[in-house]
Amino acid sequence: MDKYTDKPAEECGVFGIFSKDRKEVSSLIYLGIHSLQHRGQEGSGICVCNEGQFDIYKGSSLVDNIFDEERLKSLKGNRGIGHDSTDGSSQHANIQPLLIKSSRGSLALAQNGKLVNSKQLRLFLEKNGSIFHSTLDTEVIAHLIARSPHDKIEDALNDSLNQVKGAYSLVVLTEDKLIGVRDAHGFRPLVIGKLGGDYILASESCALDIIGAELIRDVNPGEMIIINEEGFTSKRYKPEVKSEFCVFEYIYLARPDSIIHGNNVHLIRMEMGRQLARECDNLDSIDIVVPVLDSGLSAAQGFAEEADKPFRFGMLKNRYVGRTFIDPVEKIRNLKVRMKLNPMQEIVRGKKIALVDDSIVRGTTSRQLVDMVRAEGAEEVHMLISSPPVTHPCYYGLDISKRSDLIAAQMSLEEIRQEIGADSLNYLSLEGLNSIMEEKENGCCYACFTGEYPIGKGHDNNSI
Amino acid sequence: MDKYTDKPAEECGVFGIFSKDRKEVSSLIYLGIHSLQHRGQEGSGICVCNEGQFDIYKGSSLVDNIFDEERLKSLKGNRGIGHDSTDGSSQHANIQPLLIKSSRGSLALAQNGKLVNSKQLRLFLEKNGSIFHSTLDTEVIAHLIARSPHDKIEDALNDSLNQVKGAYSLVVLTEDKLIGVRDAHGFRPLVIGKLGGDYILASESCALDIIGAELIRDVNPGEMIIINEEGFTSKRYKPEVKSEFCVFEYIYLARPDSIIHGNNVHLIRMEMGRQLARECDNLDSIDIVVPVLDSGLSAAQGFAEEADKPFRFGMLKNRYVGRTFIDPVEKIRNLKVRMKLNPMQEIVRGKKIALVDDSIVRGTTSRQLVDMVRAEGAEEVHMLISSPPVTHPCYYGLDISKRSDLIAAQMSLEEIRQEIGADSLNYLSLEGLNSIMEEKENGCCYACFTGEYPIGKGHDNNSI
Amino acid sequence: MDKYTDKPAEECGVFGIFSKDRKEVSSLIYLGIHSLQHRGQEGSGICVCNEGQFDIYKGSSLVDNIFDEERLKSLKGNRGIGHDSTDGSSQHANIQPLLIKSSRGSLALAQNGKLVNSKQLRLFLEKNGSIFHSTLDTEVIAHLIARSPHDKIEDALNDSLNQVKGAYSLVVLTEDKLIGVRDAHGFRPLVIGKLGGDYILASESCALDIIGAELIRDVNPGEMIIINEEGFTSKRYKPEVKSEFCVFEYIYLARPDSIIHGNNVHLIRMEMGRQLARECDNLDSIDIVVPVLDSGLSAAQGFAEEADKPFRFGMLKNRYVGRTFIDPVEKIRNLKVRMKLNPMQEIVRGKKIALVDDSIVRGTTSRQLVDMVRAEGAEEVHMLISSPPVTHPCYYGLDISKRSDLIAAQMSLEEIRQEIGADSLNYLSLEGLNSIMEEKENGCCYACFTGEYPIGKGHDNNSI
Amino acid sequence: MDKYTDKPAEECGVFGIFSKDRKEVSSLIYLGIHSLQHRGQEGSGICVCNEGQFDIYKGSSLVDNIFDEERLKSLKGNRGIGHDSTDGSSQHANIQPLLIKSSRGSLALAQNGKLVNSKQLRLFLEKNGSIFHSTLDTEVIAHLIARSPHDKIEDALNDSLNQVKGAYSLVVLTEDKLIGVRDAHGFRPLVIGKLGGDYILASESCALDIIGAELIRDVNPGEMIIINEEGFTSKRYKPEVKSEFCVFEYIYLARPDSIIHGNNVHLIRMEMGRQLARECDNLDSIDIVVPVLDSGLSAAQGFAEEADKPFRFGMLKNRYVGRTFIDPVEKIRNLKVRMKLNPMQEIVRGKKIALVDDSIVRGTTSRQLVDMVRAEGAEEVHMLISSPPVTHPCYYGLDISKRSDLIAAQMSLEEIRQEIGADSLNYLSLEGLNSIMEEKENGCCYACFTGEYPIGKGHDNNSI
Repeated sequence: MDKYTDKPAEECGVFGIFSKDRKEVSSLIYLGIHSLQHRGQEGSGICVCNEGQFDIYKGSSLVDNIFDEERLKSLKGNRGIGHDSTDGSSQHANIQPLLIKSSRGSLALAQNGKLVNSKQLRLFLEKNGSIFHSTLDTEVIAHLIARSPHDKIEDALNDSLNQVKGAYSLVVLTEDKLIGVRDAHGFRPLVIGKLGGDYILASESCALDIIGAELIRDVNPGEMIIINEEGFTSKRYKPEVKSEFCVFEYIYLARPDSIIHGNNVHLIRMEMGRQLARECDNLDSIDIVVPVLDSGLSAAQGFAEEADKPFRFGMLKNRYVGRTFIDPVEKIRNLKVRMKLNPMQEIVRGKKIALVDDSIVRGTTSRQLVDMVRAEGAEEVHMLISSPPVTHPCYYGLDISKRSDLIAAQMSLEEIRQEIGADSLNYLSLEGLNSIMEEKENGCCYACFTGEYPIGKGHDNNSI
Repeated sequence: MDKYTDKPAEECGVFGIFSKDRKEVSSLIYLGIHSLQHRGQEGSGICVCNEGQFDIYKGSSLVDNIFDEERLKSLKGNRGIGHDSTDGSSQHANIQPLLIKSSRGSLALAQNGKLVNSKQLRLFLEKNGSIFHSTLDTEVIAHLIARSPHDKIEDALNDSLNQVKGAYSLVVLTEDKLIGVRDAHGFRPLVIGKLGGDYILASESCALDIIGAELIRDVNPGEMIIINEEGFTSKRYKPEVKSEFCVFEYIYLARPDSIIHGNNVHLIRMEMGRQLARECDNLDSIDIVVPVLDSGLSAAQGFAEEADKPFRFGMLKNRYVGRTFIDPVEKIRNLKVRMKLNPMQEIVRGKKIALVDDSIVRGTTSRQLVDMVRAEGAEEVHMLISSPPVTHPCYYGLDISKRSDLIAAQMSLEEIRQEIGADSLNYLSLEGLNSIMEEKENGCCYACFTGEYPIGKGHDNNSI
Repeated sequence: MDKYTDKPAEECGVFGIFSKDRKEVSSLIYLGIHSLQHRGQEGSGICVCNEGQFDIYKGSSLVDNIFDEERLKSLKGNRGIGHDSTDGSSQHANIQPLLIKSSRGSLALAQNGKLVNSKQLRLFLEKNGSIFHSTLDTEVIAHLIARSPHDKIEDALNDSLNQVKGAYSLVVLTEDKLIGVRDAHGFRPLVIGKLGGDYILASESCALDIIGAELIRDVNPGEMIIINEEGFTSKRYKPEVKSEFCVFEYIYLARPDSIIHGNNVHLIRMEMGRQLARECDNLDSIDIVVPVLDSGLSAAQGFAEEADKPFRFGMLKNRYVGRTFIDPVEKIRNLKVRMKLNPMQEIVRGKKIALVDDSIVRGTTSRQLVDMVRAEGAEEVHMLISSPPVTHPCYYGLDISKRSDLIAAQMSLEEIRQEIGADSLNYLSLEGLNSIMEEKENGCCYACFTGEYPIGKGHDNNSI
Repeated sequence: MDKYTDKPAEECGVFGIFSKDRKEVSSLIYLGIHSLQHRGQEGSGICVCNEGQFDIYKGSSLVDNIFDEERLKSLKGNRGIGHDSTDGSSQHANIQPLLIKSSRGSLALAQNGKLVNSKQLRLFLEKNGSIFHSTLDTEVIAHLIARSPHDKIEDALNDSLNQVKGAYSLVVLTEDKLIGVRDAHGFRPLVIGKLGGDYILASESCALDIIGAELIRDVNPGEMIIINEEGFTSKRYKPEVKSEFCVFEYIYLARPDSIIHGNNVHLIRMEMGRQLARECDNLDSIDIVVPVLDSGLSAAQGFAEEADKPFRFGMLKNRYVGRTFIDPVEKIRNLKVRMKLNPMQEIVRGKKIALVDDSIVRGTTSRQLVDMVRAEGAEEVHMLISSPPVTHPCYYGLDISKRSDLIAAQMSLEEIRQEIGADSLNYLSLEGLNSIMEEKENGCCYACFTGEYPIGKGHDNNSI
């Protein structure tokens, strides 16, 4: 969970590059994982390969605190992978990429996603003599690769992935290749891009933009992309099944400037806001539409336009992220929210406000937002959420793992409204969400709204 | 100058608190200077006083890098001042607050602004045996205080300020008082606030908001506020003269959520955007209005509303600030701008864009912005600036010190348009700006647009 | 190799404690590995266990730079192990302790020594599907433990150690036990101590002294010590074979204040100096005996007493260790040696000096020492070495791995004398060394002097 | 006071270099202040001058923690000064060198010593309008220089020094000169050296040795050395008076490898040990002589030789300095002393020990030393101190400032013996000390033994 806002956290961002033209790629990987940092702020790492020699550096902090110019210079190689992680554990072994040696040489892996059968696989592997250094699903995949009888890494990876079940977008660096795979259902995003003659894999297209690379296309569910000196080839390693792309990527996780499956995320979010307005039956009681920044910005704009109400910045954001330690004597109301957002009395005073946000997960900050706006003199505060109530945990890569944490799993709509102190509360309907997505996507996973898990829950659900 | 955007930098933010009710104020000062960090990112410091004992800590970095919980705990005292600085010098002595000892005991000072006669005063003081540890104007003021024959600090400060000429908002911490003063013309902002029974001085009201304090009012030009155990008293130490409030505070410098002289800054900026639209004669050639984030956000919204054109996020901001070191081989076009902003092809493609920003100073980033948007397929790019051309240096506290750096001092409007590659270029007229300000303000300094310096230039203009 | 002196470096120091009486042991482990830091200065780590929960922290620096009070407090547990490493690689995975999970739960290991068959074992393990995260021999041992069919950790460890061949003193932390083992030949030291009701394992007794613990005895070659809540038990896991204790521990590696097999190391070194004097045939040409600090201190004192010559501090040590970066323009002769030692003109001028050191390995600093003393006016400089010429690499844990690096493997005695510029050069004879050790030890390894390797060289000698 | 041993701390070390031949001197200054770090471990700084441009960097830590290669490279200049400080205050302003600007341009100063009339001078200066940034005596001197009517810096410095009274060895860097002065009585050491065509000033000759410079001679009491492009000139700025060199420099403060006034410090200390033996009347009850390392090393050797008793390392030193934080539950007896010294049971058991140290100040560690040795089985422990009892505070630069802290000011000899638990206690007599010094020195200050203060105590004695 994000510390300051009530948002689910993606578990990871991945990036990989294989260059023919340039000598050093570590600074490009740095830019890539920096641009994907919204997918994981707790740790990051870069692994590069230089003529068969692997070098790696990882740390538990923001990308900028871990890598400086000198460090990047020391990471020599014309290919490599990088990773952003939300794993809050201070355990160094749990930061990715994972670099291992096996009978097929060195191998580095970085994964976004979550397996549902990793517990069983670990037990099986341990029973057969494997040792684990981390609690990463990625290490399970690495073990399965190492145990595969096949010589070619693609075949061994195939072997490995045929045993795992779950959500994963994975980049793998071998001594002579860079491989990217997405699970058969395509839960997590992964794109392929091009910079001059070099190929890049990344969780989101915004990581291509920053280095001036061009988006080729999304990696397909069940597809394996193999990049080497000759260019890239693709093979389908899993038969085609129904697509189950995580709809929360569109709702909150992905950067608004990313393109997923041809869709600009910001525009999709605006559309969610428009649909929310169409579904809203008390538009008359609204004077102005105020976004909860930044999460509700796009939806609020769409909402305001559809509702034909003024779009107003009734709260503004502090440019600098700060820490909230404070002498316990000096209790300041709503400090965590205040460190990010400052309400604008001149705008909200005497007004009936539609406060638009993308989602409510635990409900811990919505109350503070409503309070803050009301304290500045808002006459009414109507909370509008551009996604359905989150009622079920995610087992495919979001860190919403316990039902008891989810306010919408514990309370009725009216109870939530009272809890957060709003005058009214409207969520986007599942039908409304679906009507948008079915035009844009082959198929989405809505499990956190419905409890219908396309590939089950697995047994090992309370670990990260 | 801001490293990534072509904006002038304010030289400083100041904060002070005198508490009766609480024991420790260092974490409140931390929050205060954190919220004022947009006024100075190069260094900061906190000085506290505990029963006559002063303690100080300063550093050359962002507030969050200098102060952690342990450090704040070690700064004990129920009153204190803090400072944000843009002084890029690595010289520790140039970071404020300035803590000195003189015959009237210990004294800490923190200033926002710039004196025009500091060079003469330094020469005079040095000739009379004074030694300087820094190049700060604040140290000049401190010397003059120390040399005053008056016993009372208020009188000595009065003495000192009667000798200096320039722009200053100053907070002074003595063993038993906290004093705030604004220069006679009120170039720089300073407000007074209240938290329970405690009084606070701050450059902007956003620093009150973060700690839950209430804005009482602005300190008046030529006013001295004296805070002690009994509360606060005010005295006019300078006769009333024409107010010359820096209009650039409204245009760019102040945080949009601050209230200055009763005006919400964001609303003023929206009004500038509206006026810009009223003055614009080629509205027909515009499809959508795109703000340059964050500087042009408010004006763009006003512009779009007045022009009745769609307000669109055609570029989005990266949440995380990063560094732009990169292997020289890997030249990436417009990387500095890209680290902050990502253009949205789906929004700008095939459109005639009005790109709205608050100002152009050196003109170094406007070209990159226009280029980036055009590269994504914009049909036309019209640049709209919500302030007049900056043609003259500031001697009162902004770091625009050389005419040769100012693009509008060197080129005609048409030349600038060509230089930045826009299809058209419109600045807000001085009359337009004036028409907004004269309703809201008693009087503003427009010297950077007109070259008419209300209190002259001084001689010592090329030092910081 | 030590950066400043021409000494071989031990690869590691290990420490373990299992407490019943106290809650937290991390600060005791800190003191332990701090006192063993002469055995490894490149990295260190601490792993603790608290009711089955393991926590670990490691870093690449001196112990004091890695662990501070806060860090130690965060490492909670009443038992744990620590390690000092000379592995200069920046690879975090190569720092010990090694913490892994297998079918028998979590396991932490820390080793001092070197296996001779690790390459074969790695190949075998990789072929059978194992993956490696490091290049540590310890990881080989961990894999073999994990693959053992035995349930009890002691039996599995036994299994594992029956497959490895080499020098190792090992501490293993399981969820309920602390185990210490020495290889069958006892190449590397390991002692067991007691503090109140708690038991401790350590590479050297000096680590017991610092925490006020009592030395019980050395762990025997081929012995396994199992410590748990009930106290400690011992079992012989290997049949008795000839003891092959590394004589270089006595010559240089161990701290002089340690007790090994009942012998005070300082006194043994004095005895080596005495024997060197007895063997020396040009005592008449010596005025004073000067130790090369600190390595030659003990031997020099013994030499001086036996030779009945004045023992003089003709060079003194700088208390603070410094770095030797220096502008290349400012070449300073012998700076590396000077940073540690300063010659005393008043003492050496006009004198015939016996310069006593413990060993010459590559011969890189001896020349500088002789030069420095001569430059201060010494009339003659006689180099006396209290061990035989090092002519062969070590495969059992010292980092003298290439014959080509060893001056005595490349040159005759007379050539070395000329190379280092001494008037005469005397080594202790192997017979002389042996005559001392055979009284004190059951059996020693002299392979670096003789090339007779008691358990062979292995194949994988050039890796660390 | 040194944290681990019961020793007085010198307040400072100074270093200066003026080069014609080389471009950069910062790394030479680094080496110089590193070699003088025994004179001040709490903070240090370097100020360089490059064609009139001054640059400075200071910090509160060991030299090695403050300066790395990059930092030194950024300090550009062919002349400069450096300083080691024991000022434990975290106040950055109190770290030297002090860099100021006055009517005669920039000036940097670094001082070793203490003024006795600084309080009066500060009051006078403050009364006349001076402001102080620090509590340094050096700042008083700087003010007096700035206020001098003389144009030439030498004359102004002369003026300044004629007003101060106290102990000082001072280096001053101006835009074109490097000046060194010693007070009229020469309390503190200062030498001048030569490296190629460049001249160097340093507190001790060991700072010349490390950079390969040659000792020219001591700066004389009352002498001013002026170094510029032409070389160095000398002038006597004070009439000749009785020399009062601090005898504690010989006893403990100076490095043993330094030459002061032609005397090797180590040899002087050996002589003190010899004299102590001559004065000792219970030599018969001594089996072996054990030095307290490192402070008692030289004296113990002299003592052993004169007494004709075996000189034995009955305690050995840990090579690495560590911190002594430890969980309060885990009380370890004598940990502070143990972190430095480990007793050697095999050497002391059953023996009558003469434990030789240089001084007892507060008496806090002597008890621990005696205890530790006795706990290892020593039959008798006789404490022998190679200086007289310290009964009076120092006002001239040592940090022994309160009589109540001095054990010998509070207790009789017999009481001290009981307090430290020794079987006997012998101090060197004042006559004995005097007999050594009068041969070697023109005159020494013995005030801490006698209370006869050659230039009085001043009024401001309790500040540092």
